[in-house]
Amino acid sequence: MEYSTFGRHVAIDVWGVEFERLNSAEFLKNHMVEAAEACGATVLSVQAQQFEPQGATVLVMLSESHISIHTYPERGFAALDCYTCGETVDPQIAIDYMVSVLQPEKFYVKKLIRGVGELEIVTPEVNRNYIQA
Amino acid sequence: MEYSTFGRHVAIDVWGVEFERLNSAEFLKNHMVEAAEACGATVLSVQAQQFEPQGATVLVMLSESHISIHTYPERGFAALDCYTCGETVDPQIAIDYMVSVLQPEKFYVKKLIRGVGELEIVTPEVNRNYIQA
Repeated sequence: MEYSTFGRHVAIDVWGVEFERLNSAEFLKNHMVEAAEACGATVLSVQAQQFEPQGATVLVMLSESHISIHTYPERGFAALDCYTCGETVDPQIAIDYMVSVLQPEKFYVKKLIRGVGELEIVTPEVNRNYIQA
Repeated sequence: MEYSTFGRHVAIDVWGVEFERLNSAEFLKNHMVEAAEACGATVLSVQAQQFEPQGATVLVMLSESHISIHTYPERGFAALDCYTCGETVDPQIAIDYMVSVLQPEKFYVKKLIRGVGELEIVTPEVNRNYIQA
């Protein structure tokens, strides 16, 4: 069986997030697994690292690619990505889910269309109230 | 201690890679760890998944962020990323290292400057002969 190489990769920098939401690898891991499930992806495994004195990294391996986060709680900043291959799983749903959890004051976001030639870059819509929607 | 949120994230789609180079999670994992070391990053842990009938995903967690690869050996395609935080570790070196290993016929690459406001996107130079250099 051949799989489509088409994929969508959403990269978002979030700012103005409460310290506590960014400083627990366990909290982030649990929500990232929920975010993966929300967009219909399949979680294969997770790496989570708590840094001292603060900060966390979580890498979630999906059947359909990955979700990653790197946090700087002391700066209210995190870099969050979701890359999914194929047409059926939309990474924007996982991003919207996490933005709803983190509730940043502001964010900067780009979506890369991959696996089809030159990387196309667009600015997607973000629904920061996804969970309540 | 506060850390700089500045980071560089290189995303590269490589095409025309030999099947065997893309179809071994173990081979890729070993080279990605070497690529991390080449750019001076510190490897914290690795997730590697071999898919059936073919394909692999490897996620390398770094102290400075991550390296990821998702491969489609039957299409000669892989999506490779290296994101590193801070000024000292240059993700382009890890990408050049992996491009030298994979020897793709062609590639498409973008670099995102993250952690400083709006995501700035540039097209970096790739040295596909890094290992021999």
